[in-house]
Amino acid sequence: MYIEKIYTPSDLKKLTIRECQELAKEIRKALIVKASKKGGHLASNLGMVDATIAIHYVFNSPTDKIIFDVSHQCYTHKILTGRKDAFIDEELYNTCNGYTNPVESEHDVFRVGHTATSISLACGMAKARDLAGGKENIIAIIGDGSLSGGEALEGLNFGGSEIQGNLIIIFNDNQMSIAENHGGIYKNLQQLRETYGKCENNLFKAFGYDYLFVKDGHDIEELVKTLQSVKDIDHPIVVHICTVKGKGYEHAQMNKESTHWVRPFDIESGKEKNPFNGARYDYIIRDHLIEKMKKDERIVTMIAAVPGALSFSEEYRKQIGRQFVDVGIAEEHAIAMAAGIAKHGGKPVFATMSTFFQRTYDQISQELCINKMPATMIVVNASVYSADDVTHIGIFDIPMMSNIPNLVYLAPTNRQEYIAMLDWSIDQTEYPVAIRAPRNGVFDAKGEVDVDYSELNKYKVVSEGKEIAIIALGDFFQLGEELSDKIKKIYSINSTLINPRYITGLDKTLLTDLIKNHKLIITLEDGVLDGGFGQKIASFYGPQDMKVLNYGLKKEFLDRYNISEVMEKNHLCADIIAEDIKNYV
Amino acid sequence: MYIEKIYTPSDLKKLTIRECQELAKEIRKALIVKASKKGGHLASNLGMVDATIAIHYVFNSPTDKIIFDVSHQCYTHKILTGRKDAFIDEELYNTCNGYTNPVESEHDVFRVGHTATSISLACGMAKARDLAGGKENIIAIIGDGSLSGGEALEGLNFGGSEIQGNLIIIFNDNQMSIAENHGGIYKNLQQLRETYGKCENNLFKAFGYDYLFVKDGHDIEELVKTLQSVKDIDHPIVVHICTVKGKGYEHAQMNKESTHWVRPFDIESGKEKNPFNGARYDYIIRDHLIEKMKKDERIVTMIAAVPGALSFSEEYRKQIGRQFVDVGIAEEHAIAMAAGIAKHGGKPVFATMSTFFQRTYDQISQELCINKMPATMIVVNASVYSADDVTHIGIFDIPMMSNIPNLVYLAPTNRQEYIAMLDWSIDQTEYPVAIRAPRNGVFDAKGEVDVDYSELNKYKVVSEGKEIAIIALGDFFQLGEELSDKIKKIYSINSTLINPRYITGLDKTLLTDLIKNHKLIITLEDGVLDGGFGQKIASFYGPQDMKVLNYGLKKEFLDRYNISEVMEKNHLCADIIAEDIKNYV
Repeated sequence: MYIEKIYTPSDLKKLTIRECQELAKEIRKALIVKASKKGGHLASNLGMVDATIAIHYVFNSPTDKIIFDVSHQCYTHKILTGRKDAFIDEELYNTCNGYTNPVESEHDVFRVGHTATSISLACGMAKARDLAGGKENIIAIIGDGSLSGGEALEGLNFGGSEIQGNLIIIFNDNQMSIAENHGGIYKNLQQLRETYGKCENNLFKAFGYDYLFVKDGHDIEELVKTLQSVKDIDHPIVVHICTVKGKGYEHAQMNKESTHWVRPFDIESGKEKNPFNGARYDYIIRDHLIEKMKKDERIVTMIAAVPGALSFSEEYRKQIGRQFVDVGIAEEHAIAMAAGIAKHGGKPVFATMSTFFQRTYDQISQELCINKMPATMIVVNASVYSADDVTHIGIFDIPMMSNIPNLVYLAPTNRQEYIAMLDWSIDQTEYPVAIRAPRNGVFDAKGEVDVDYSELNKYKVVSEGKEIAIIALGDFFQLGEELSDKIKKIYSINSTLINPRYITGLDKTLLTDLIKNHKLIITLEDGVLDGGFGQKIASFYGPQDMKVLNYGLKKEFLDRYNISEVMEKNHLCADIIAEDIKNYV
Repeated sequence: MYIEKIYTPSDLKKLTIRECQELAKEIRKALIVKASKKGGHLASNLGMVDATIAIHYVFNSPTDKIIFDVSHQCYTHKILTGRKDAFIDEELYNTCNGYTNPVESEHDVFRVGHTATSISLACGMAKARDLAGGKENIIAIIGDGSLSGGEALEGLNFGGSEIQGNLIIIFNDNQMSIAENHGGIYKNLQQLRETYGKCENNLFKAFGYDYLFVKDGHDIEELVKTLQSVKDIDHPIVVHICTVKGKGYEHAQMNKESTHWVRPFDIESGKEKNPFNGARYDYIIRDHLIEKMKKDERIVTMIAAVPGALSFSEEYRKQIGRQFVDVGIAEEHAIAMAAGIAKHGGKPVFATMSTFFQRTYDQISQELCINKMPATMIVVNASVYSADDVTHIGIFDIPMMSNIPNLVYLAPTNRQEYIAMLDWSIDQTEYPVAIRAPRNGVFDAKGEVDVDYSELNKYKVVSEGKEIAIIALGDFFQLGEELSDKIKKIYSINSTLINPRYITGLDKTLLTDLIKNHKLIITLEDGVLDGGFGQKIASFYGPQDMKVLNYGLKKEFLDRYNISEVMEKNHLCADIIAEDIKNYV
């Protein structure tokens, strides 16, 4: 086994090309086995095994800087840079995370997880190198999917004329984003592949780059030869390599989209081991949208290269045909386009993760909200219960989005309320609306839910009590119910329980009414407290005698956390809150 | 005079081409005269007179949709669509704003002011049209400067393959952004101009578009002919027209950058009529940075196509040579590149307007703050005293930026404190730092200012009193001083006056100390209250007996406002606040 003897890239350099090919097989096997047991990014990594070997064979990391885009394809890089055990020893599987991480290794330059960042980061390093008079190679590795992102195109443009020295962009063309690609540049990439890089129009040359084409991105010998020819080059160049997503594992090659990222599966059959069969909001929303779209052809469901946001796999996308739009990794375009659709009588519904809405703050504010365009934004994974990698956590959308004027940000607490809000949002024509999908499980409403949300900022009193009022937002409503019960039990107080529903405004009438027979307000929200919902309530009561306790998450970048620990640390447990308030009751 | 007879575009269509040429002259004269008296965007509008006439001559607005990018070049469009009086009658000059505005006219599709939005907005309208079975032309007008923006490139990519029907992109190539262009695509545009659109690599074709080239974008006859040939076209096409920024006014043609946007000037000499000669933070920061850069070649000053952010006109840019980087209109790239520079030992300083930082929220959060890269962001025009168009107001950056973990957002209150914070930020290596430039004039420190800000969130007690504490942030510190005096005078109370300095955190020790002998806290901030600074103070004191009054701006999109009125409406006057607190003292 070669893989066991690789401690640093210098061990790799001792191998022959033939031995590197054997190593590639061993790495693929390790990747498949680990993914089958732990899950993770699979097909994307299988495609980059050979190229990553060639890159480390030719360049000298960490002197030369290798910057991965998204970095979900960096597993081979981790194996070759001292972290093989995290891939071959099951007990050590958890010692590596799924993205590049400078804390793990000096060979990892940045902590990244969002797309389209590598070229700009590389330009910055190249600029610093040039100012310092250095000579090291600066290498960005970016996939064809990422190239639709505005940040990548901005970086590509800048690098094409403003970096005078060495800049090597390895463009990994596997003809896939997570799903299929969308956009005009992909027609050009096809022409480039068909002509072995020789067609008349060349996107990269049009951006000002020198250019090389490598037909088979799995041919280590060819890759090594090409990379040796560009090592220490004195100007920016794009090396366009063609790879196969999922290479070396038939199930992955045949199911590129579903094996981009996987949960534990059976290697033989490719089947997921423990599929979740319960109720899920992504399914609920998707199915409701499809039904609704069939009745109203003005509705357009939009995603930005992440069909998983609503589990819109290919069979579902086909069902709605031209009413489904995947803009590619292009969130800014998505929101601006939604504004255009809404302006011209369409009903856009754009769904993506909380963390990816961060990529389009300005368009939400300017195109959507200044223009008051009636578009619906479905915000998923917006919760402490959601993705736990630091680059993907979903606890910042409330401060980011809810302080933009004109936006109506809704926080449903159960299935029926969610659907009612979604229906209202799609059918109204007055406001940009965002809806925050709960992540604490799917609960059913205990009574009728309202269907009209046009009277903005009207909170719902779920149970009327006194002394203490609990304002429990979105998927922390169930925590509010639990807390209410606990308070009843411990202090014999019937507290008032409120479902505020609107994140973007205060029900001042209700809040004022509460002053009469309440002395303590408790707010609960599933996101960072700073700039969030509860602090607005605290500010409202600032001039009053009312005591206010805001519960939510501390402003910090959580990473690969234990949810229970985080909840406890932030006092987000009915027991702890009940104890906290003992001096106020 | 033809201009006087144009009430709608149909009046224009009655003219001969020859008469259109005369009209163009009249329009240019009106633009120059109005700009000389009122200021506004000048050179950019002069370049688009003929093309705008041709567009309205050929297409049928408002059935056909004309979407301007940035829309600072829409003055001729306004003249041709019923708003000529706002350009020829001095008393009516104020009846139009400087950007497209649907409130003014059905011919204005969107309220925009930021760059790079037009293609995506047009894609949305084209999509809605196609779903509805419509046939109208959808036209985006975008300049070469805007094309460096990621959103424009995302839109260009999408439109190049995903819009099946009519989409006409009129690409106005005047070889300028506000200043010169930066990026590889501008080399390609030069080749296209030199070969009359026939060179081997064609950026637009590489993005999937049909393409036409018009050599002289001031030749109305040629433009009309070309546009007639693309009218009702059944697929996306780019019409590349070459224009001269400032066309028809020699002073503008010779000074394209300084006449992009002007203050009132003398037409004969081109000289500004009432130049401001007082102290200005843009000059102070620029001069300090230049001095500092000369001593430390690791410092890189970066802008994103807006040299005016720091008044970095050409003579100053030349002084610092390769230590100055203009990334073009590419804020996402700017922040990611800054992270790259910082990671590799450089000291990046990126300056732009508050409103443009909105375009790079995700990069600030991910590339900069997750990675804790020591970069400096200079946030200008972040104030109610700043630009007053709804698309450019600078009152949202506190909620947007200050709730991102790891960021240190500083609010200096005077010149010496600003310089000390800037020096500290550039020389430290621990934190991403943003500094909010005051806009209420340049004040001098009344005593020594601290030079070390590494003890985060340490507020400065400027005068110690009791009963009432005023926490006055940034450029509202002077309002705090005034209020303190007023309280002394009216209530004979020596209040405590605090300069918090840090927007991003609480000085909990100090805030706790205040409980002893204070009963009222007043916070003042120059930005929207929601999600901002004061609400964090209110939340901190929520469980206490302390009363808290937060003063700042209401969450709303202000537009072309009277500052005094806005200040009064929001109670941001010492008199009004002193009256407000009468029941608390």
